[in-house]
Amino acid sequence: MSNAHLIAQLDFLLELDKLKAILRRTRPAGMQRLENSAEHSWHVALMALLLAEHAEPAVDAERVMKILLLHDIVEIDADDTFLYDETGTLEKVAKEEAAAERIFGLLPAAQREAFTALWREYEDRVTPEGKFAYACDRLLPMLQNLANQGQSWLENGVRFEQVIRKNLPIKDAAPGLWDYVLPRLEAARAAGWLA
Amino acid sequence: MSNAHLIAQLDFLLELDKLKAILRRTRPAGMQRLENSAEHSWHVALMALLLAEHAEPAVDAERVMKILLLHDIVEIDADDTFLYDETGTLEKVAKEEAAAERIFGLLPAAQREAFTALWREYEDRVTPEGKFAYACDRLLPMLQNLANQGQSWLENGVRFEQVIRKNLPIKDAAPGLWDYVLPRLEAARAAGWLA
Ligand SMILES: [Ca+2]
Repeated sequence: MSNAHLIAQLDFLLELDKLKAILRRTRPAGMQRLENSAEHSWHVALMALLLAEHAEPAVDAERVMKILLLHDIVEIDADDTFLYDETGTLEKVAKEEAAAERIFGLLPAAQREAFTALWREYEDRVTPEGKFAYACDRLLPMLQNLANQGQSWLENGVRFEQVIRKNLPIKDAAPGLWDYVLPRLEAARAAGWLA
Repeated sequence: MSNAHLIAQLDFLLELDKLKAILRRTRPAGMQRLENSAEHSWHVALMALLLAEHAEPAVDAERVMKILLLHDIVEIDADDTFLYDETGTLEKVAKEEAAAERIFGLLPAAQREAFTALWREYEDRVTPEGKFAYACDRLLPMLQNLANQGQSWLENGVRFEQVIRKNLPIKDAAPGLWDYVLPRLEAARAAGWLA
Protein backbone atom coordinates (compact mmCIF):
# COMPACT_ATOMS: atom_id res chain seq x y z
CA MET A 1 0.00 0.00 0.00
CA SER A 2 1.38 3.41 -0.91
CA ASN A 3 2.35 5.92 1.73
CA ALA A 4 0.10 8.51 0.04
CA HIS A 5 -2.90 6.25 0.64
CA LEU A 6 -2.15 6.01 4.37
CA ILE A 7 -1.35 9.72 4.65
CA ALA A 8 -4.74 10.58 3.14
CA GLN A 9 -6.41 8.31 5.70
CA LEU A 10 -4.51 9.96 8.55
CA ASP A 11 -5.38 13.46 7.30
CA PHE A 12 -9.04 12.46 7.54
CA LEU A 13 -8.46 10.90 10.97
CA LEU A 14 -6.92 14.06 12.40
CA GLU A 15 -9.59 16.26 10.80
CA LEU A 16 -12.13 14.38 12.94
CA ASP A 17 -10.69 16.01 16.07
CA LYS A 18 -12.67 19.14 15.10
CA LEU A 19 -16.04 17.47 15.74
CA LYS A 20 -15.13 17.61 19.44
CA ALA A 21 -15.58 21.40 19.28
CA ILE A 22 -19.10 21.34 17.77
CA LEU A 23 -21.68 21.95 20.49
CA ARG A 24 -25.26 20.67 20.74
CA ARG A 25 -28.09 21.90 23.00
CA THR A 26 -28.05 18.97 25.43
CA ARG A 27 -26.03 18.90 28.66
CA PRO A 28 -24.76 15.44 29.69
CA ALA A 29 -26.27 14.20 32.97
CA GLY A 30 -24.76 16.00 35.95
CA MET A 31 -22.66 18.37 33.81
CA GLN A 32 -23.02 22.11 33.25
CA ARG A 33 -21.36 22.19 29.85
CA LEU A 34 -23.03 21.44 26.52
CA GLU A 35 -22.55 18.09 24.84
CA ASN A 36 -20.39 17.97 21.71
CA SER A 37 -21.14 16.09 18.51
CA ALA A 38 -18.23 13.66 18.83
CA GLU A 39 -19.26 12.27 22.22
CA HIS A 40 -22.88 12.27 21.05
CA SER A 41 -21.85 10.20 18.01
CA TRP A 42 -20.25 7.62 20.29
CA HIS A 43 -23.33 7.50 22.48
CA VAL A 44 -25.81 7.09 19.64
CA ALA A 45 -23.68 4.49 17.78
CA LEU A 46 -23.57 2.36 20.91
CA MET A 47 -27.30 2.97 21.38
CA ALA A 48 -27.94 1.46 17.94
CA LEU A 49 -26.07 -1.69 18.90
CA LEU A 50 -27.92 -1.82 22.23
CA LEU A 51 -31.43 -1.32 20.82
CA ALA A 52 -31.20 -2.86 17.34
CA GLU A 53 -33.57 -5.67 18.31
CA HIS A 54 -36.37 -3.07 18.53
CA ALA A 55 -36.07 -2.10 14.85
CA GLU A 56 -38.98 -3.05 12.55
CA PRO A 57 -38.12 -4.30 9.98
CA ALA A 58 -34.94 -5.87 11.32
CA VAL A 59 -31.69 -4.03 10.58
CA ASP A 60 -28.02 -4.78 10.12
CA ALA A 61 -26.95 -3.28 13.47
CA GLU A 62 -23.34 -2.95 12.39
CA ARG A 63 -24.24 -0.84 9.38
CA VAL A 64 -26.38 1.36 11.61
CA MET A 65 -23.37 1.85 13.89
CA LYS A 66 -21.21 2.90 10.96
CA ILE A 67 -23.88 5.31 9.72
CA LEU A 68 -24.08 6.89 13.16
CA LEU A 69 -20.32 7.14 13.67
CA LEU A 70 -20.23 9.15 10.43
CA HIS A 71 -23.54 11.00 10.47
CA ASP A 72 -22.45 14.25 12.15
CA ILE A 73 -19.00 14.70 10.57
CA VAL A 74 -20.36 17.32 8.17
CA GLU A 75 -20.98 19.54 11.20
CA ILE A 76 -17.23 20.24 11.25
CA ASP A 77 -17.94 22.71 8.43
CA ALA A 78 -21.73 23.16 8.67
CA ASP A 79 -22.16 23.29 12.49
CA ASP A 80 -24.96 21.60 14.40
CA THR A 81 -28.50 22.66 13.56
CA PHE A 82 -30.97 22.43 16.43
CA LEU A 83 -33.79 20.06 15.46
CA TYR A 84 -36.42 22.59 16.45
CA ASP A 85 -34.84 25.45 14.51
CA GLU A 86 -37.36 25.82 11.68
CA THR A 87 -35.32 28.27 9.59
CA GLY A 88 -32.56 27.70 7.11
CA THR A 89 -33.24 24.10 6.13
CA LEU A 90 -32.36 24.53 2.45
CA GLU A 91 -29.21 26.42 3.32
CA LYS A 92 -28.34 23.65 5.78
CA VAL A 93 -28.61 20.98 3.08
CA ALA A 94 -26.30 22.91 0.74
CA LYS A 95 -23.77 23.53 3.51
CA GLU A 96 -23.74 19.89 4.52
CA GLU A 97 -23.32 18.71 0.92
CA ALA A 98 -20.29 20.98 0.55
CA ALA A 99 -18.94 19.76 3.89
CA ALA A 100 -19.31 16.11 2.86
CA GLU A 101 -17.49 16.82 -0.38
CA ARG A 102 -14.58 18.49 1.37
CA ILE A 103 -14.22 16.19 4.39
CA PHE A 104 -14.87 12.80 2.77
CA GLY A 105 -12.82 14.18 -0.13
CA LEU A 106 -9.74 13.87 2.08
CA LEU A 107 -10.02 10.07 1.79
CA PRO A 108 -8.71 7.65 -0.85
CA ALA A 109 -11.38 7.18 -3.56
CA ALA A 110 -12.90 3.84 -2.49
CA GLN A 111 -13.29 4.95 1.10
CA ARG A 112 -14.57 8.38 0.06
CA GLU A 113 -17.38 6.66 -1.81
CA ALA A 114 -18.18 4.17 0.95
CA PHE A 115 -18.25 6.77 3.73
CA THR A 116 -20.25 9.25 1.64
CA ALA A 117 -22.80 6.53 0.89
CA LEU A 118 -23.19 5.74 4.61
CA TRP A 119 -23.65 9.43 5.41
CA ARG A 120 -26.22 9.76 2.62
CA GLU A 121 -28.09 6.74 3.96
CA TYR A 122 -28.70 8.70 7.16
CA GLU A 123 -29.79 11.82 5.29
CA ASP A 124 -32.10 9.93 2.90
CA ARG A 125 -33.87 7.76 5.50
CA VAL A 126 -35.00 5.24 2.90
CA THR A 127 -33.34 1.98 3.97
CA PRO A 128 -34.30 0.31 7.27
CA GLU A 129 -30.78 1.09 8.51
CA GLY A 130 -31.03 4.76 7.55
CA LYS A 131 -34.43 5.03 9.21
CA PHE A 132 -33.35 3.28 12.39
CA ALA A 133 -30.17 5.38 12.61
CA TYR A 134 -32.32 8.49 12.36
CA ALA A 135 -34.74 7.12 14.98
CA CYS A 136 -31.89 6.53 17.46
CA ASP A 137 -30.55 10.02 16.82
CA ARG A 138 -34.01 11.45 17.58
CA LEU A 139 -34.71 9.26 20.59
CA LEU A 140 -31.46 9.78 22.49
CA PRO A 141 -31.85 13.53 23.24
CA MET A 142 -35.48 12.90 24.27
CA LEU A 143 -34.33 10.29 26.76
CA GLN A 144 -31.63 12.68 27.99
CA ASN A 145 -34.28 15.39 28.45
CA LEU A 146 -36.59 12.98 30.26
CA ALA A 147 -33.71 12.11 32.61
CA ASN A 148 -32.76 15.77 32.95
CA GLN A 149 -36.10 17.42 33.80
CA GLY A 150 -36.48 18.74 30.26
CA GLN A 151 -33.22 20.74 30.30
CA SER A 152 -32.79 21.48 26.57
CA TRP A 153 -36.57 21.74 25.96
CA LEU A 154 -36.90 24.37 28.67
CA GLU A 155 -33.73 26.26 27.71
CA ASN A 156 -34.94 26.49 24.12
CA GLY A 157 -38.70 26.91 24.58
CA VAL A 158 -39.56 23.68 22.77
CA ARG A 159 -43.27 22.81 22.54
CA PHE A 160 -44.89 19.39 22.92
CA GLU A 161 -46.43 19.50 19.42
CA GLN A 162 -42.98 20.15 17.89
CA VAL A 163 -41.51 17.18 19.72
CA ILE A 164 -44.25 14.87 18.50
CA ARG A 165 -44.05 16.06 14.89
CA LYS A 166 -40.25 15.97 14.64
CA ASN A 167 -39.84 12.63 16.37
CA LEU A 168 -42.67 10.68 14.72
CA PRO A 169 -40.18 8.90 12.39
CA ILE A 170 -39.25 6.83 15.47
CA LYS A 171 -42.70 5.20 15.28
CA ASP A 172 -42.02 4.04 11.74
CA ALA A 173 -38.56 2.54 12.45
CA ALA A 174 -39.08 1.20 15.98
CA PRO A 175 -42.74 1.24 17.07
CA GLY A 176 -41.96 -0.37 20.44
CA LEU A 177 -39.61 2.47 21.32
CA TRP A 178 -42.22 5.05 20.33
CA ASP A 179 -44.83 3.28 22.48
CA TYR A 180 -42.41 3.50 25.39
CA VAL A 181 -41.57 7.17 25.00
CA LEU A 182 -44.94 8.69 24.09
CA PRO A 183 -46.59 8.42 27.54
CA ARG A 184 -43.38 9.77 29.08
CA LEU A 185 -43.55 12.80 26.80
CA GLU A 186 -47.13 13.35 27.90
CA ALA A 187 -46.00 13.16 31.53
CA ALA A 188 -43.20 15.64 30.74
CA ARG A 189 -45.76 18.07 29.35
CA ALA A 190 -47.90 17.61 32.47
CA ALA A 191 -44.79 18.32 34.58
CA GLY A 192 -44.17 21.57 32.68
CA TRP A 193 -40.93 20.43 31.01
CA LEU A 194 -42.40 21.22 27.59
CA ALA A 195 -44.30 24.35 26.65
CA MET B 1 -40.54 -7.93 24.60
CA SER B 2 -41.10 -7.00 28.22
CA ASN B 3 -40.93 -3.44 29.43
CA ALA B 4 -38.40 -4.49 32.09
CA HIS B 5 -36.03 -5.63 29.32
CA LEU B 6 -36.20 -2.25 27.58
CA ILE B 7 -35.95 -0.33 30.85
CA ALA B 8 -32.75 -2.21 31.72
CA GLN B 9 -31.32 -1.29 28.30
CA LEU B 10 -32.23 2.37 28.81
CA ASP B 11 -30.68 2.43 32.30
CA PHE B 12 -27.43 1.30 30.70
CA LEU B 13 -27.82 3.84 27.90
CA LEU B 14 -28.22 6.76 30.30
CA GLU B 15 -25.38 5.51 32.51
CA LEU B 16 -23.10 6.00 29.49
CA ASP B 17 -23.52 9.78 29.77
CA LYS B 18 -20.99 9.64 32.62
CA LEU B 19 -18.12 8.65 30.32
CA LYS B 20 -18.33 12.22 28.95
CA ALA B 21 -16.94 13.45 32.29
CA ILE B 22 -13.85 11.18 32.33
CA LEU B 23 -10.79 13.13 31.20
CA ARG B 24 -7.69 11.93 29.39
CA ARG B 25 -4.28 13.65 29.00
CA THR B 26 -4.69 14.66 25.35
CA ARG B 27 -6.11 18.00 24.18
CA PRO B 28 -8.04 17.85 20.89
CA ALA B 29 -6.40 19.85 18.10
CA GLY B 30 -6.86 23.58 18.59
CA MET B 31 -8.60 23.18 21.97
CA GLN B 32 -7.35 24.08 25.44
CA ARG B 33 -9.48 21.57 27.32
CA LEU B 34 -8.64 17.90 27.86
CA GLU B 35 -10.26 15.21 25.75
CA ASN B 36 -12.85 12.99 27.40
CA SER B 37 -13.15 9.22 27.03
CA ALA B 38 -16.53 9.32 25.22
CA GLU B 39 -15.34 11.48 22.32
CA HIS B 40 -12.08 9.49 22.24
CA SER B 41 -14.11 6.27 21.95
CA TRP B 42 -15.94 7.69 18.93
CA HIS B 43 -12.66 8.74 17.34
CA VAL B 44 -10.88 5.43 17.82
CA ALA B 45 -13.90 3.33 16.71
CA LEU B 46 -14.04 5.27 13.46
CA MET B 47 -10.25 4.94 13.18
CA ALA B 48 -10.62 1.16 13.26
CA LEU B 49 -13.06 1.25 10.36
CA LEU B 50 -10.79 3.63 8.47
CA LEU B 51 -7.55 1.68 8.96
CA ALA B 52 -8.76 -1.95 9.19
CA GLU B 53 -7.07 -2.80 5.89
CA HIS B 54 -3.70 -2.34 7.62
CA ALA B 55 -4.33 -5.11 10.16
CA GLU B 56 -2.20 -8.26 9.87
CA PRO B 57 -3.76 -10.79 10.04
CA ALA B 58 -6.98 -9.40 8.60
CA VAL B 59 -9.71 -8.47 11.09
CA ASP B 60 -13.48 -8.22 11.25
CA ALA B 61 -13.54 -4.41 11.27
CA GLU B 62 -17.08 -4.27 12.63
CA ARG B 63 -16.16 -6.33 15.66
CA VAL B 64 -13.16 -4.07 16.28
CA MET B 65 -15.52 -1.07 16.18
CA LYS B 66 -17.79 -2.66 18.75
CA ILE B 67 -14.84 -3.51 21.00
CA LEU B 68 -13.66 0.10 20.82
CA LEU B 69 -17.09 1.63 21.44
CA LEU B 70 -17.18 -0.40 24.66
CA HIS B 71 -13.54 -0.51 25.72
CA ASP B 72 -13.47 2.55 28.01
CA ILE B 73 -16.88 2.25 29.70
CA VAL B 74 -15.30 0.80 32.85
CA GLU B 75 -13.62 4.19 33.37
CA ILE B 76 -17.01 5.49 34.57
CA ASP B 77 -16.14 3.80 37.88
CA ALA B 78 -12.38 3.19 37.53
CA ASP B 79 -11.31 6.49 35.88
CA ASP B 80 -8.76 6.81 33.09
CA THR B 81 -5.25 5.53 33.82
CA PHE B 82 -2.49 7.32 31.92
CA LEU B 83 -0.59 4.79 29.80
CA TYR B 84 2.74 5.97 31.16
CA ASP B 85 1.67 5.80 34.79
CA GLU B 86 3.68 2.78 35.98
CA THR B 87 2.04 2.46 39.40
CA GLY B 88 -1.13 0.76 40.48
CA THR B 89 -1.60 -1.70 37.62
CA LEU B 90 -2.93 -4.55 39.77
CA GLU B 91 -5.29 -2.19 41.56
CA LYS B 92 -6.43 -0.89 38.16
CA VAL B 93 -7.32 -4.41 36.97
CA ALA B 94 -9.39 -5.08 40.10
CA LYS B 95 -11.18 -1.74 39.82
CA GLU B 96 -12.00 -2.28 36.17
CA GLU B 97 -13.30 -5.81 36.81
CA ALA B 98 -15.66 -4.44 39.46
CA ALA B 99 -16.70 -1.63 37.12
CA ALA B 100 -17.47 -4.07 34.31
CA GLU B 101 -19.55 -6.17 36.66
CA ARG B 102 -21.59 -3.20 37.83
CA ILE B 103 -22.05 -1.36 34.54
CA PHE B 104 -22.57 -4.29 32.16
CA GLY B 105 -24.64 -5.77 35.00
CA LEU B 106 -27.30 -3.14 34.26
CA LEU B 107 -28.07 -4.97 30.99
CA PRO B 108 -30.39 -7.91 30.26
CA ALA B 109 -28.44 -11.18 30.59
CA ALA B 110 -27.67 -11.95 26.94
CA GLN B 111 -26.42 -8.45 26.24
CA ARG B 112 -24.48 -8.35 29.50
CA GLU B 113 -22.57 -11.43 28.37
CA ALA B 114 -22.00 -10.18 24.82
CA PHE B 115 -20.78 -6.72 25.87
CA THR B 116 -18.59 -8.11 28.65
CA ALA B 117 -17.00 -10.51 26.16
CA LEU B 118 -16.22 -7.65 23.76
CA TRP B 119 -14.69 -5.60 26.57
CA ARG B 120 -12.62 -8.60 27.68
CA GLU B 121 -11.41 -9.12 24.12
CA TYR B 122 -9.78 -5.68 24.32
CA GLU B 123 -8.25 -6.38 27.73
CA ASP B 124 -6.93 -9.83 26.74
CA ARG B 125 -5.39 -8.87 23.37
CA VAL B 126 -5.39 -12.44 22.13
CA THR B 127 -7.65 -12.36 19.05
CA PRO B 128 -6.63 -10.37 15.95
CA GLU B 129 -9.58 -8.05 16.67
CA GLY B 130 -8.55 -7.49 20.29
CA LYS B 131 -4.96 -6.83 19.23
CA PHE B 132 -5.93 -4.45 16.45
CA ALA B 133 -8.36 -2.58 18.73
CA TYR B 134 -5.53 -2.13 21.23
CA ALA B 135 -3.16 -1.00 18.45
CA CYS B 136 -5.62 1.69 17.30
CA ASP B 137 -6.07 2.86 20.88
CA ARG B 138 -2.29 3.19 21.24
CA LEU B 139 -1.69 4.79 17.85
CA LEU B 140 -4.33 7.54 18.00
CA PRO B 141 -2.87 9.57 20.90
CA MET B 142 0.59 9.28 19.30
CA LEU B 143 -0.78 10.73 16.08
CA GLN B 144 -2.50 13.47 18.09
CA ASN B 145 0.80 14.24 19.82
CA LEU B 146 2.67 14.29 16.52
CA ALA B 147 0.07 16.77 15.19
CA ASN B 148 0.20 18.76 18.42
CA GLN B 149 3.96 19.29 18.93
CA GLY B 150 4.06 16.60 21.59
CA GLN B 151 1.50 18.27 23.88
CA SER B 152 0.67 15.40 26.27
CA TRP B 153 4.23 13.97 26.15
CA LEU B 154 5.67 17.31 27.21
CA GLU B 155 2.99 18.04 29.82
CA ASN B 156 3.61 14.66 31.43
CA GLY B 157 7.38 14.24 30.97
CA VAL B 158 7.06 11.14 28.78
CA ARG B 159 10.32 9.61 27.50
CA PHE B 160 11.02 8.18 24.04
CA GLU B 161 11.94 4.75 25.45
CA GLN B 162 8.60 4.56 27.28
CA VAL B 163 6.71 5.37 24.09
CA ILE B 164 8.50 2.67 22.15
CA ARG B 165 8.03 0.03 24.84
CA LYS B 166 4.35 0.77 25.50
CA ASN B 167 3.38 1.06 21.85
CA LEU B 168 5.27 -1.89 20.41
CA PRO B 169 2.05 -4.00 20.28
CA ILE B 170 1.14 -1.87 17.24
CA LYS B 171 3.95 -3.57 15.33
CA ASP B 172 2.44 -6.97 15.98
CA ALA B 173 -1.14 -6.04 14.91
CA ALA B 174 -0.42 -3.61 12.08
CA PRO B 175 3.25 -3.58 11.03
CA GLY B 176 2.64 -1.04 8.25
CA LEU B 177 1.30 1.47 10.74
CA TRP B 178 4.29 0.93 13.01
CA ASP B 179 6.68 1.45 10.07
CA TYR B 180 4.91 4.72 9.37
CA VAL B 181 4.99 6.05 12.91
CA LEU B 182 8.47 4.96 14.10
CA PRO B 183 10.54 7.46 12.06
CA ARG B 184 8.09 10.19 13.10
CA LEU B 185 8.66 9.33 16.75
CA GLU B 186 12.39 9.59 16.14
CA ALA B 187 11.87 13.00 14.55
CA ALA B 188 9.73 14.03 17.55
CA ARG B 189 12.58 13.10 19.88
CA ALA B 190 14.99 15.10 17.74
CA ALA B 191 12.58 18.06 17.93
CA GLY B 192 12.51 17.84 21.73
CA TRP B 193 8.86 16.77 22.02
CA LEU B 194 9.92 13.68 23.99
CA ALA B 195 12.39 13.59 26.84
CA1 LIG C 1 -26.68 16.82 14.51
